[in-house]
Amino acid sequence: MKLKVIVPITTKALEEETKKEIAKIGLPGVDIEVERIEYGTASIESMYDEMLCAPGIIKVAERAQAHGFDGVFIDCMGDPALDAVRERLDIPVVGAARPCMLYAADLASKFTIVTVVENVIGMFENQARGLGLRDKLASVRTTDIPVLDLADKEKTVKALVGESVRAIEEDGAHAIILGCTGMMGVAEDLGKALEQKGYEVPVVYPVPTAIRYLETLISLKLVQSKKTYMSPPDKDRNLLERL
Amino acid sequence: MKLKVIVPITTKALEEETKKEIAKIGLPGVDIEVERIEYGTASIESMYDEMLCAPGIIKVAERAQAHGFDGVFIDCMGDPALDAVRERLDIPVVGAARPCMLYAADLASKFTIVTVVENVIGMFENQARGLGLRDKLASVRTTDIPVLDLADKEKTVKALVGESVRAIEEDGAHAIILGCTGMMGVAEDLGKALEQKGYEVPVVYPVPTAIRYLETLISLKLVQSKKTYMSPPDKDRNLLERL
Amino acid sequence: MKLKVIVPITTKALEEETKKEIAKIGLPGVDIEVERIEYGTASIESMYDEMLCAPGIIKVAERAQAHGFDGVFIDCMGDPALDAVRERLDIPVVGAARPCMLYAADLASKFTIVTVVENVIGMFENQARGLGLRDKLASVRTTDIPVLDLADKEKTVKALVGESVRAIEEDGAHAIILGCTGMMGVAEDLGKALEQKGYEVPVVYPVPTAIRYLETLISLKLVQSKKTYMSPPDKDRNLLERL
Amino acid sequence: MKLKVIVPITTKALEEETKKEIAKIGLPGVDIEVERIEYGTASIESMYDEMLCAPGIIKVAERAQAHGFDGVFIDCMGDPALDAVRERLDIPVVGAARPCMLYAADLASKFTIVTVVENVIGMFENQARGLGLRDKLASVRTTDIPVLDLADKEKTVKALVGESVRAIEEDGAHAIILGCTGMMGVAEDLGKALEQKGYEVPVVYPVPTAIRYLETLISLKLVQSKKTYMSPPDKDRNLLERL
Amino acid sequence: MKLKVIVPITTKALEEETKKEIAKIGLPGVDIEVERIEYGTASIESMYDEMLCAPGIIKVAERAQAHGFDGVFIDCMGDPALDAVRERLDIPVVGAARPCMLYAADLASKFTIVTVVENVIGMFENQARGLGLRDKLASVRTTDIPVLDLADKEKTVKALVGESVRAIEEDGAHAIILGCTGMMGVAEDLGKALEQKGYEVPVVYPVPTAIRYLETLISLKLVQSKKTYMSPPDKDRNLLERL
Amino acid sequence: MKLKVIVPITTKALEEETKKEIAKIGLPGVDIEVERIEYGTASIESMYDEMLCAPGIIKVAERAQAHGFDGVFIDCMGDPALDAVRERLDIPVVGAARPCMLYAADLASKFTIVTVVENVIGMFENQARGLGLRDKLASVRTTDIPVLDLADKEKTVKALVGESVRAIEEDGAHAIILGCTGMMGVAEDLGKALEQKGYEVPVVYPVPTAIRYLETLISLKLVQSKKTYMSPPDKDRNLLERL
Repeated sequence: MKLKVIVPITTKALEEETKKEIAKIGLPGVDIEVERIEYGTASIESMYDEMLCAPGIIKVAERAQAHGFDGVFIDCMGDPALDAVRERLDIPVVGAARPCMLYAADLASKFTIVTVVENVIGMFENQARGLGLRDKLASVRTTDIPVLDLADKEKTVKALVGESVRAIEEDGAHAIILGCTGMMGVAEDLGKALEQKGYEVPVVYPVPTAIRYLETLISLKLVQSKKTYMSPPDKDRNLLERL
Repeated sequence: MKLKVIVPITTKALEEETKKEIAKIGLPGVDIEVERIEYGTASIESMYDEMLCAPGIIKVAERAQAHGFDGVFIDCMGDPALDAVRERLDIPVVGAARPCMLYAADLASKFTIVTVVENVIGMFENQARGLGLRDKLASVRTTDIPVLDLADKEKTVKALVGESVRAIEEDGAHAIILGCTGMMGVAEDLGKALEQKGYEVPVVYPVPTAIRYLETLISLKLVQSKKTYMSPPDKDRNLLERL
Repeated sequence: MKLKVIVPITTKALEEETKKEIAKIGLPGVDIEVERIEYGTASIESMYDEMLCAPGIIKVAERAQAHGFDGVFIDCMGDPALDAVRERLDIPVVGAARPCMLYAADLASKFTIVTVVENVIGMFENQARGLGLRDKLASVRTTDIPVLDLADKEKTVKALVGESVRAIEEDGAHAIILGCTGMMGVAEDLGKALEQKGYEVPVVYPVPTAIRYLETLISLKLVQSKKTYMSPPDKDRNLLERL
Repeated sequence: MKLKVIVPITTKALEEETKKEIAKIGLPGVDIEVERIEYGTASIESMYDEMLCAPGIIKVAERAQAHGFDGVFIDCMGDPALDAVRERLDIPVVGAARPCMLYAADLASKFTIVTVVENVIGMFENQARGLGLRDKLASVRTTDIPVLDLADKEKTVKALVGESVRAIEEDGAHAIILGCTGMMGVAEDLGKALEQKGYEVPVVYPVPTAIRYLETLISLKLVQSKKTYMSPPDKDRNLLERL
Repeated sequence: MKLKVIVPITTKALEEETKKEIAKIGLPGVDIEVERIEYGTASIESMYDEMLCAPGIIKVAERAQAHGFDGVFIDCMGDPALDAVRERLDIPVVGAARPCMLYAADLASKFTIVTVVENVIGMFENQARGLGLRDKLASVRTTDIPVLDLADKEKTVKALVGESVRAIEEDGAHAIILGCTGMMGVAEDLGKALEQKGYEVPVVYPVPTAIRYLETLISLKLVQSKKTYMSPPDKDRNLLERL
Repeated sequence: MKLKVIVPITTKALEEETKKEIAKIGLPGVDIEVERIEYGTASIESMYDEMLCAPGIIKVAERAQAHGFDGVFIDCMGDPALDAVRERLDIPVVGAARPCMLYAADLASKFTIVTVVENVIGMFENQARGLGLRDKLASVRTTDIPVLDLADKEKTVKALVGESVRAIEEDGAHAIILGCTGMMGVAEDLGKALEQKGYEVPVVYPVPTAIRYLETLISLKLVQSKKTYMSPPDKDRNLLERL
């Protein structure tokens, strides 16, 4: 099984870190290739960024299918271009936010997403609404650390613990979802810190969750419905050749 | 007052027709300029098309604000790139679908959108859900006439009348929204046909509705909330310069 | 175009102030006539008041249509007798609350209504629920200043600013709606005060918003749906002749 | 215990029939007085009618409390003036629609209201929405027999049976509510007819259901919440003295 | 009329107290028999307890119908085994939570349930959701007094008053429901205490509310719908004979 | 990794078939043990059956944890006793319905569950409502083949194909979920038949879907939240020792 992980931004450092993080997952018989887009934005923290990264994501995804990959993971909690790629491809395509929310919805009555900056709060609320899970989203909380500053793990963990505790105590969260796929290598520390404070709640880490969900879909021969994600009709399209 | 109408596709013929249609609206003291995008798709009939047209729309919109326009109308019922442009601009930005749905929600308990092809049904359901109006959307019906074939007015009107009657009689629609801004010059004929059949229901025609809504916002000094549509933080973005 | 504005209460001073406020709107070619009801209540601050003012509103509205007016605006955020008048008339009829909420729902993900007294909170929640916008109503806040005391502009603005700031900071409001049509001549000061505090959020002022919405409907030849607001069947009705 | 039943219309014949129907209920120790309003409409089949009957209902209700009655039942499925009267009175006030819907919501997963004419369908949908029961309302069906023609029992029962069967078979109704308090003396026949067709579903007859619900409230010393139905503040009100 | 009250736990003391409390209701012509289950749990404070008490409840309920009872009340706010018993029996079966919530939904726009321990909060939220009343449930609050410690009336009343006041002031509750049928003999004191603090809100006491609701159903010949609660098909079942 | 699959009914033949079906899944390093309950019902087709099987399920599940299993799958689409077992155990516990619905909600905008008999329709609607997915459940359809007759594969497939096609064409389903875990060895044939008719929609087969979901949870160290599924407090419980 061959999976393509699309890092949907242009920052090389995050592509490298993703490669290392994914190497740890270790699924037997699964070959994972990580690739970032060439034209887009340095990180995604607005709908504006999502729109500017979408063509690059589409380009990499189309190539992945052409090259025989079995599935595609768009590695961002904004699920940028997810619907568009699902329309265009015949292999399973997953984002990060949906599997995390769906798993959390099964394991807990309410969950909080702890993310980077205030700009993306509305985006998460819309995603939850689209899945029917708006009432299960206890809150979206922010660490106020932009994506490109997440490399400071100590600072990130500290902020995550603080917001997670507030989510549990003030917002009624029963599970925590890491709200940015750039929050790598911190889930375990967060989980331990919460446990020490007496909170036995699931901490959902998007990258391995989405990868395993994608692997499951492929194993079960499940693909996005072609009634929901209908193939786009043929017509003149002159953008992708510019990239 | 100077308004920019963005035809968010690359088809010259539709740009020309839009210019003529808008000339008929005749708002005193309002200067309207129509401009299509250079890179994108020939028409929008999927999320895939929306993503490929978004950068072009953003480019024209940013230039419009720089050139002193007072407001921007993205002339498509898919509201492509609307959220992104609203984040980026300080002048009012409107799409076509939202004002139509909001006006219909005031005038009728349920409304139907009659659109082009099956591919966009889900898109309209998501827009209505986002506005909280999912329960007021009686149905989305399709004429099965693609955007680029709408020039055949007779065929289009006939199909619109048929679907509108079915919407009223079978789906409980109390108002009809034309589901594509390419359906120009047909609203009046549709309204008359329905009236002759004894149905006094509002027929909402997107182009003038959105233009007048935009003009009202500017007159009232109302702009999209900068708490909902926060300005995107500065960062490297290398896509637009390719277009 | 000739519009009738119904001041749906019996207080002469508010009728006079409304006339002056409406004179400022200045729509070219639009003639606006303001008229208060003769029998009803001094102000509307309960469902009890709404019921006692409804017959008077109906009386003025029916006469307006008979006298050739092109549209009717019932000038109260409670939208008293709106449904009844829409059933009875063939010209467009609008209230104040619905256009404000619909515009706010387009411009912001959540809005707060800042109104007069606690008694009317439930009324606004019901109106929002009826439109499908309950989830977008962040809160209803009150200044605790009754309608008939709103003439003290300084006190009113101060209270509005205080509650609006709390709405934004504590309730997550991204837009503010003035919750009483008696709050005249204060919207601009409120907007400026919020801007000075760094909040760029729309402040929706009901009177001009509703007037312009009504003018738009007439221009677009849009009327309330006669499937939703069916004409009442003929029968004995002996109340109106008593008034 | 002394109950006041308000027949909220001006038709004497329906007042008489209501007296007879209520006499059959036979609650020991409960004294029930029926009174129709003097000014209003001959029947209620629109929001227009509700608004014109509301002042008369308020007048009778206020007098009932002054005369020492223990509770008030407004005998109409439109629940006209219910909120207003609840605000004004300190004794329990009930309408017909709410108890019927609440009982049906407990006994069945979905219910249909079979009522008189198309004009009132929206009114029932709004009532259900207000109670949170919109999803449990399978449908509103109409016999197309106006209130004042319900005296033809045979015709009424036949129409009710037909629509109830369609509600069960086509709309998924698991319970039937008689949708007009003027449908007197027909519930038993309807229930028997449905049973003969193999449908064991509750048939909720509004008049005795509401009377018994009111009696229960009084016995349990339960009154409408004065936080929801706050007492209207004092002010000039000049309508009621005209009636 | 003969009613069976099932105390759905194995604690003898609560059965005795229930008998005394029910004796106070005093419905003329109504004979009430109280019976606890033999195998189950000492109290119900989790879904685990509900599942372990269900077979015992079913056993008593089936016997009640066989012995000619006219209705069954399962005396617990968790409504344990309610759906199962309704499927199996042809006489009306009621729980405690549903009538309380439905009555509160009519009398107030929002209500709070004040219950025993944190473990059952989710259970109440699910019940409200099932009835469509999730939005009317302002909050579920807990006294942190387990069921078997409720005998200390003074402590219980004090805790109930404290939480009820917080529910009204902080959560927007307009009515209070006692959240455990073991809270006997405290409703009146709670009501008085709230009144003294100026809060005129309904306090719903489950035991008499449910009994009177059941009596009403029987009088009105209303039974749970056999379309919603279909009779279970015959098959091998070997559990009940073990108990 | 050691998983316990609980066949939550007493029928030996279904336990045997489940063993064979699970042997086909073939997850490397995963040891799966199948065990049916001793006391309960022959199949589950009502809430009555669920209640009678719950104690047996609890008994097997508690023993599984005591014996060192890493996770438990309750192999029934009714998710019987799921909440109770999740409260009591510290290892992950999954049912069949929830993972199927959550996966379908990601892959399609609407899905239909095709199940056995009419009795369980309401059960599925409640499960979907509890997850927030009520609006995504296009319909529940039944083959009218009881659980114990599913062994006739040819008949079962034929009925499944018929109902699935109707679900897609009439109800707007974009994915199909097999609505009974007893529908073994038919998913592939159903999928092929739909594909031949031109419908590319996911067919979700509960048994392998749930097993793989459970394996994923264990790999990710995710367990049901102990805030949602709190451990039941200690108390006398005398039922399980009878079984």
